[in-house]
Amino acid sequence: MDIVATLRQLIGDSGVLDATELSTRSAGALRQDALQGAALARPRTTDEVASVLRWCHQHRIGVVPCGGLTGLVHGADGSAEVVMLSLERMNAIESIDSRQRCATVQAGVILQVLQETLEQHQLIFPLDLGARGSATLGGNAATNAGGNRVIRYGMMRNMVLGLEAVLADGTIVSSMNKLIKNNAAYDLKQLFIGSEGTLGVITRLNLRLWEAPTTRNMALLGLPDFASVTALLKRMDRDLGGTLSAFEVMWQDFYQLVTTAPAEGRPPIAQDYPFYVLLEGQGADPDGDSGRFAAALETVMAEGLVVDGALSQSEADCDRFWSLRDDVAQVFRGGYPFIFDISLPLAEMENYIAGLRDSLEEKVPDHHLLVFGHLGDGNLHLAVQVPEAEGEQWRQTVESLVYEPLAAFRGSVSAEHGIGLEKRPWLGVSRNAEELALMRTLKSALDPVGILNPGKVLAP
Amino acid sequence: MDIVATLRQLIGDSGVLDATELSTRSAGALRQDALQGAALARPRTTDEVASVLRWCHQHRIGVVPCGGLTGLVHGADGSAEVVMLSLERMNAIESIDSRQRCATVQAGVILQVLQETLEQHQLIFPLDLGARGSATLGGNAATNAGGNRVIRYGMMRNMVLGLEAVLADGTIVSSMNKLIKNNAAYDLKQLFIGSEGTLGVITRLNLRLWEAPTTRNMALLGLPDFASVTALLKRMDRDLGGTLSAFEVMWQDFYQLVTTAPAEGRPPIAQDYPFYVLLEGQGADPDGDSGRFAAALETVMAEGLVVDGALSQSEADCDRFWSLRDDVAQVFRGGYPFIFDISLPLAEMENYIAGLRDSLEEKVPDHHLLVFGHLGDGNLHLAVQVPEAEGEQWRQTVESLVYEPLAAFRGSVSAEHGIGLEKRPWLGVSRNAEELALMRTLKSALDPVGILNPGKVLAP
Repeated sequence: MDIVATLRQLIGDSGVLDATELSTRSAGALRQDALQGAALARPRTTDEVASVLRWCHQHRIGVVPCGGLTGLVHGADGSAEVVMLSLERMNAIESIDSRQRCATVQAGVILQVLQETLEQHQLIFPLDLGARGSATLGGNAATNAGGNRVIRYGMMRNMVLGLEAVLADGTIVSSMNKLIKNNAAYDLKQLFIGSEGTLGVITRLNLRLWEAPTTRNMALLGLPDFASVTALLKRMDRDLGGTLSAFEVMWQDFYQLVTTAPAEGRPPIAQDYPFYVLLEGQGADPDGDSGRFAAALETVMAEGLVVDGALSQSEADCDRFWSLRDDVAQVFRGGYPFIFDISLPLAEMENYIAGLRDSLEEKVPDHHLLVFGHLGDGNLHLAVQVPEAEGEQWRQTVESLVYEPLAAFRGSVSAEHGIGLEKRPWLGVSRNAEELALMRTLKSALDPVGILNPGKVLAP
Repeated sequence: MDIVATLRQLIGDSGVLDATELSTRSAGALRQDALQGAALARPRTTDEVASVLRWCHQHRIGVVPCGGLTGLVHGADGSAEVVMLSLERMNAIESIDSRQRCATVQAGVILQVLQETLEQHQLIFPLDLGARGSATLGGNAATNAGGNRVIRYGMMRNMVLGLEAVLADGTIVSSMNKLIKNNAAYDLKQLFIGSEGTLGVITRLNLRLWEAPTTRNMALLGLPDFASVTALLKRMDRDLGGTLSAFEVMWQDFYQLVTTAPAEGRPPIAQDYPFYVLLEGQGADPDGDSGRFAAALETVMAEGLVVDGALSQSEADCDRFWSLRDDVAQVFRGGYPFIFDISLPLAEMENYIAGLRDSLEEKVPDHHLLVFGHLGDGNLHLAVQVPEAEGEQWRQTVESLVYEPLAAFRGSVSAEHGIGLEKRPWLGVSRNAEELALMRTLKSALDPVGILNPGKVLAP
């Protein structure tokens, strides 16, 4: 059976790369290896996606859907046996409706392309994350992407009004709802959002848009202890009354790393505070917002929750503050990094990090722990650096030290990155036997032959 | 087989009412008929719910879960053959966590009880609807309730962090996530939210809480035409920058009805404007919010979008404005009302209502159409009154005139009330064959014997 030849009959010669051609592509962001697959299918239409899936289903050939390949959990890894399915040629923004505040897009549209297109409409699609320049909206939906402004707008799940998906057997389910409220029976889109391509392939989306804020105020704050960090979150969420749009935290080590050469960033405030918070408010009152933002901060400084701070005076300041938090590339120098994306209750966070420091100290002689993340959402990113030469040999140890303590309080091994292949061994930390059984029931119901992104999320 | 006797063995004598005892209860809000069922089971624990379901599953006996019986679509109707399952004795608020901003509740807790309990914590659970005094949180989740502040906080789906549900066969799936972000594989709670008890019985919930706003400003506005209504929505959503918490519309007929005796309300502004908007902003700046609210309105009045308006000067004013919009009971006088709960794109709304007026005029000689609703969410409530003496004989005609035109632009036959039995014949207006087939796939996978809320949502 010639997979490449058959696919070319189905979707045209230019739509299909063979194994050699596709191996010239990278396996993805931050990856050294090449893409693998029996073929890379690049359909132009939903019907072509359906014809590829129908044929693969008949012949029990695995299909791995891929977006911008910016995922960090090996959720789109291929192999010599599977068809890689890229929606890169389905990249049209079909419509933008300013009154309904809805954009209809094909799944291959790059996040940043939509963000920039919307500027002329005074609307925003509020999802934002570091990979914005290559991540696709279909991939964002399939992984329920989070990012920088979840505290205000929710995750991708909250921004998808409707979608079109192709099931394993090639059935096209068009559920292109544009309405904020629609309780006409089951909300099917929820099946495809966050299931990492294991239950269907998302081909088109109706996305909710929001009116663009017209003001932005930011502060970079130094805090004396963790209790002050969580108290500040409550206070700002209350005192900024609906305008709080980001509440990011950096532990001291991470702040020092991204504000010290060879990093490009320089410290807006001193480097010796235990915790740093990056606060952002977005509003619509050019005359009053900056004063209200500053007044809210003055109060918490007077109370000692915050001991030092720099306020943005311009959009350039805001960008500079964000660039510190976003300079995650720094964790790739000075060691081999294992990167984590966990969430846990705020009440557990300080003890959890303290315990992790102790256990790393004990079990991993030469390491460096860096902590930062979306504290407003209970989401921490951890980077554990080990010596470059030792690298992967530490994976099992480091992963068990990070993940196992989460089980005690039902923390999540994946706040936003997903499970893919990388976190699959640890899924049982966050999900119990009944949950896993029900997930398998869903997988069997929607993909009985098991061709969709085989082996990802749930073990076969 | 003695259903009552067996259930009493399973969950105790006081936990079970027999057919005669349960028939002394009303079938629900706005209903004249009595509850029906072979028995009413009132378990005290999730294990008891599981034992009831396990036994019913073994014996293929239908189970109808019920909350506060405030639904409007016959979603909890019983029959002589089924076991009614009420969670009224599972009504504990188990915990309120001010730092995590999460409440853990049993499914039988009344919405208003939670709202009032939270006042002392300066937190809110933002779901709010007319039935707050008897609707349960489990029912709110099972029906994905919407209500008055969806524009700011989303529907119930957006407020549930985690839940515990019992499957048809008695399996307890505890998925009591407390985290805002958790992408550890499939988001199972989505299956149970909005599926009206047909896929499982929700027994406990972790609910997201928000910091309580400290200011409230309202206005009741008169508008000259529908284009101004949608333009105002965009403007207020932008200009109130995150504080807009309600945007309700009343067509002239409805406003006149609720501001004229025998209704208790009196008109804050004249009764001859084509459209009225009830606007609410909730913020946290006691010094600035009312001024900013008033300034935003001055601008749109100067532009002619709004031609008249009354601003709240007190909390009592706010309550009075809301009481007009909430006085839906008025549609029960002067005729037999058919009540609808539709959603459709804003661009279609004006033509749709005009078309409906014409077709009602033509087909229903003696009628009265009243229109109001949550315009900010695209959700309209319609009441079509026909002569009391003719009543139900008009159902088919009126329903077809209201529902069938929605198909052209994928409007929803149910924005928030759900499908139940009442809207089941019309589900095909809003959902296509592939969507319905996929819903049946889910139903078969989770409830293969078909005991859960039999006949509701999907025809057997």
